[in-house]
Order: sequence, then structure tokens, then C-alpha cells
Amino acid sequence: MSGSAGDNGSGPRSRPTMRDIAAQTGVSPMSVSRALRGDPGVSEATRAQVLAAVKAFGYQPNEFARQLRTGGPTHVIALVVGHLANPFYAQFAVGVERVAAQHGTRLMIMSTNNDLANERQVINDLRARQVDGVIIVPATPDHRHLAELGGPGSPVVFATTPPNGVEASSVIVDDFGGMRELCGRLLAAGHRRIGLLRLNRAMWTGSERFRGFAAAHAEQGVRFDERLITEHAGDSHWAMRETRRLLRLSDPPSAVIAANNLMTIGALRAVRDAGSDITLAGFDDIEVADLFQRSLTLVTFNADQLGERSAEVLFERQRPRTTGTGDGERRPSGPPVRDVLPTKLISYGEPLRAP
Amino acid sequence: MSGSAGDNGSGPRSRPTMRDIAAQTGVSPMSVSRALRGDPGVSEATRAQVLAAVKAFGYQPNEFARQLRTGGPTHVIALVVGHLANPFYAQFAVGVERVAAQHGTRLMIMSTNNDLANERQVINDLRARQVDGVIIVPATPDHRHLAELGGPGSPVVFATTPPNGVEASSVIVDDFGGMRELCGRLLAAGHRRIGLLRLNRAMWTGSERFRGFAAAHAEQGVRFDERLITEHAGDSHWAMRETRRLLRLSDPPSAVIAANNLMTIGALRAVRDAGSDITLAGFDDIEVADLFQRSLTLVTFNADQLGERSAEVLFERQRPRTTGTGDGERRPSGPPVRDVLPTKLISYGEPLRAP
Repeated sequence: MSGSAGDNGSGPRSRPTMRDIAAQTGVSPMSVSRALRGDPGVSEATRAQVLAAVKAFGYQPNEFARQLRTGGPTHVIALVVGHLANPFYAQFAVGVERVAAQHGTRLMIMSTNNDLANERQVINDLRARQVDGVIIVPATPDHRHLAELGGPGSPVVFATTPPNGVEASSVIVDDFGGMRELCGRLLAAGHRRIGLLRLNRAMWTGSERFRGFAAAHAEQGVRFDERLITEHAGDSHWAMRETRRLLRLSDPPSAVIAANNLMTIGALRAVRDAGSDITLAGFDDIEVADLFQRSLTLVTFNADQLGERSAEVLFERQRPRTTGTGDGERRPSGPPVRDVLPTKLISYGEPLRAP
Repeated sequence: MSGSAGDNGSGPRSRPTMRDIAAQTGVSPMSVSRALRGDPGVSEATRAQVLAAVKAFGYQPNEFARQLRTGGPTHVIALVVGHLANPFYAQFAVGVERVAAQHGTRLMIMSTNNDLANERQVINDLRARQVDGVIIVPATPDHRHLAELGGPGSPVVFATTPPNGVEASSVIVDDFGGMRELCGRLLAAGHRRIGLLRLNRAMWTGSERFRGFAAAHAEQGVRFDERLITEHAGDSHWAMRETRRLLRLSDPPSAVIAANNLMTIGALRAVRDAGSDITLAGFDDIEVADLFQRSLTLVTFNADQLGERSAEVLFERQRPRTTGTGDGERRPSGPPVRDVLPTKLISYGEPLRAP
């Protein structure tokens, strides 16, 4: 039970509810609800009494609660990301938000910190809140628990990682092709010992980017040295230490590839500290890479565009329902799609050169 | 009305509601609700019938809707920020999220794009969703429309900007002191013509940082040249153009201060393109400033800590209510507080030097 009518004094109050209004006016919660909806079955006298109590309590007639009851659209979509601190997600969110705004819909962002328990809790929050749709960057490789993320009326789009064990649309990046192109260019320039700071192999991006690295080597008949490949979830401190270790090997690599933006930052710090002119490359764009005043080649894609496309796919999944009250109820439509965004190599400073 | 029971075929469905369950079972929505709550007034037979229909429809007994009715805590707080693309907000959110997690509470982020109309819409979303509290970086100088942001049971904390026209707690940065210290150091080093890329004067941070600039000049008896001061909401492209203009003046400044992180990035690009060795300084930390390989002094504060502190103040505002059902209803407590985070000067490369 919420704070009773007696709480309505000068002290702090808890959130007033429809029951408070009902208790105050002596009419049933159902009639309060009807009065607020403008239901003609409620007398003018009762309506006036209810409105006076609503005003006295500072009660907010809850449009959202009404939507929950009727199952209509809430005009809010959710974006579930891994780490808030990675600037990739910020750019991605900007793209999602732009398209959502075009559809008169607001964006709500929640983070999982790439943790399954957090992801489950966020899912519960979202189910309860019944958003109109969800764009998710999944935290773990198995997605069966995401099957009914937003409920049957609330489509889900997977971003950066295709769904595994569940049917849903996805918008991903050409992780394989981008890494294959980058690594192929390094090999073509004459590099034979290429270090790789790779992402966790259980992650889609981790396994795809590694597959591109291996494919480029196979295509040019070069065997890679396993000792130059090291694996991590991908943070800059770890990447700095690992790059330092690679530089100190008796037979060091002539080039190092970092498999994501944060690892590229760490690798840059290690080569700066070592005064090394090793060839450095990375996956993901870095907005201020032009200011590093050091040669660096990046496999880039437009994170903003990835967000836009994910939101477009989400809204395409919803088809306004023309029957009923005309309130624009939406429902998923058509088979799942998988969109793949291309990547582009960008060199800052000198382009990729021979060892 | 939502999809009727007849929709429960093989085709796509809209979100099932309690009314669907009621229609299917022939009991009233109120009784469905009672059955799901485990109300002893509902017969076992009815409960079994309701649960079977719930299963058939894939209906989610809505815990959140229950919370809305009872006014209990939702274990979700909201963070309302200006621009998602500014890395400051990402770091800030990480701090908020950490403290929220310690309180078993999830974080929901929404953005206003520093636009009043957007801010109003986000406020409506939040009122409807009745979060347990809101941390807001306000979009505009007048905050009266934010007075009852989360409703009376849902405290609000202003971050980076103190409330104006409304009573609320706030956690802000020592904008005045930080800029005064930076500018004082430049003057002490002998700089007499200091350019300033300032933020919009209607913003708290804009006016406070400018006040620090002016105070340092007054304290050292130096008059600043208005022609070296230029004002903007603060983006990097604008800052690049303005810095270029300052460098080309017949009597250019010997030092330039950029009043936020994005403007510092723009100024860095302009001085790099011009090959200028002008003294450059900025407000806000830049995570990769050590990689720019150029002398740069920054007024820094810990955005993560600003987020933590804002969340701590928010949770301090809530006092578990021990009377009632023991469901831990919370309510604001005590007078508003204002916390001010200190700043710290950090020099990359050479420390501030004479012109």
C-alpha cells in the first residue's frame, strides 16, 4: 500500500497513487481511472471530485500505465550495450537516437557491462517496461535467454553480433572482410611476422576478426606465429603490457594489429614509450587518430551509421496495425534480416609500409 | 483494445495484456490480477485457469505495473544528459552506474540533445515511468519545468549545473576556480594576450568558466582583449575555425584556452594545421591527451567521480520507509545539498611556458 491520504501534510510524501485518490474521494480505483479517461459512464460530480483530489495530491494520471494495460505503443525503444565507457557505443547510440526521433520515439540506454547476470536483470527491466523494441549488443555468445526480450509485440534487433539460438534480425559489421583486407595489405607490403592483440574468441567479433587474420595468411601462403597472438576481452592497459612484451621478444613482430579501439590506444602508448617505429594497425575508428602524429592504419566503419541502420531495421519490423482503435499498435513483420556494414581502411600519417 | 484471444494463432501477435487473459478465461481483469498476485480471495480453480491462459498467451505478469499501482520502488534510476556523443557523459554515466549497482538499482540513460522540447518529452517519459530518482544535466538555464521531474517520491539531482528556480540537490565542478587557476598561471608565465573559446554565457559552466578567466585577469591587473574571446555552444569544428582565425590576426594571442573538451580537440587541429607552437590549454580531461605529442595543459576533474557523487547524493535523498508493507518505499529527506568537485591542472609535454 502506498502512503494514505493522511500523509498529505507538509512533510515529504511518497508517490501518490490511484488508490490514494480513490481513498480520498470514496469512489473505486476503477471509477477514478474512468473519470480520468473521460469515460461517459462517470458523472460530472464524481469527475470534478476526482480531479480536485488529483490536484491536491499532485497525482500524475499515468499514461504509461494505461499503455501497459491496453498493450499500445509506448514510443520508447531501448538500446542495450556492453560498456558505456567505450566511445563506440556513444557514436552508435547517436545514430539510433536520430532514427528513433524521426519515428517520434525516445531512446533509453541500459548497459550490461558485458555480464550475463546484468544482462538478465536488464532484460527483466525491459520486459516489465514493455518498450516498443530493443536493439541489443549481446553480452554473451548464447542468446536463447534473449528470445522474448521485449515480448512478442516488441521486436529485437541484434547489433554487431548475429543472434545465436534465437531468430531475430541483426545489423553487423564486416569483421572478417575488414581484418582480411588489413592483414592482406600488411602481408603484401612484406610483413611476415604480424602480432595480433585479438578479442576473446567466444565473441562473434573476436572470432570473425581472427578468421580474417588467418584467411589473409592462408591466401598469401604465410604461416603465422602463434606466439605473436594474444587474446583478451580488450582493454587498453592489457594491450599496452602485451605490446610491450611483443616488442621485447628476441624475434619481435614487424607489425602489430590491435583488434579493437581500446587496444589500439594501449598499443600506441607502448610503442611511444619504447620509441618504436613498428607498423601499427587496429580495428575500429578512433575519432582523434589524426592528432596522434604517428602512422596508424585503421579498419573503420561508421558506428553512427551502424546505429541508424539498426534502428531502421527495428522500425521496419514494426507494422502499424490499422484495425482496432487506430492507436497504431505495432507488431513484428516479415522474416528476420541480416545487414552487413562494409569497412574501410584509413591510414593516418604514412600508409602501410614494408618492414 | 489489444489483440483479442482470436489473434492467438500462428501469425504475428501484439503484446498480450491482462484483458486478453480476462477475455480468454471469462473472469474479470481485477480477478486475473488477484490470481496472479496470489490473493486468497481467488479460488484455486480460477487461479489454475488464469495461469493456463497466461502460459498460452505468453503473458508477462507485470511486476512493474504492480509497482506503479502501489507506488513502491522500481529499482531503476534515470540519467538525463545533453549529448550522447561527448565522451564526458560516458565517463560520468560509468560512475553513476557503479553506485546504482551498489544499491541494486539499474540505470536508464536518456538524452536531450540540449534541446528544451526534447527535455520536456524526456521528462514526460520519466514521470510516466516513475523511476526511483533522476540525475539530470539540464539542457537550459531555467529549471522550473524540472520541479517535479520524478514526482514527489522520486528525488532529482542536478549535475554540472545547480538548479535555477527550483529546489534540488546538485553536484557541480569548480568551473570558476579551475579556469581562474589556469588563466592565472598563464598570466604569471607572462602571457598578456590570451584567446578564449568560451561556452555559451547562458550556460552555468559557460558563465562560471568565463568568470574565472576574468577574475584571473583582474587579480593580475591585466585587461583582456574582447576580440580574442569568442563564444559558442562548443563543438570541435567551430573551435577549429575560430582558432585558425585567432592565429591569423595581425596581433594574435600567445596562448589559447578552449572552454571544453570538444573545443580543445578543434583547437589542436587548427594549431597542427598551422604548424603553430602557440601555448594551448583547455577545460575538461581528454583521455588520450598523452598521445597527442604536443604540449597541452588541461583543467581536469574526474567525470567518473562526478557521476559517483551525483548518484550518492541521489541515494542519500532517499530514506527507506520502515512503516507500511516493508517494501522499502523511499522518499526525499533533508534539505538540498550542493557538492562542488575540485579541479586539477595537468600538463602534457612541457608545462605552461612564457610566450
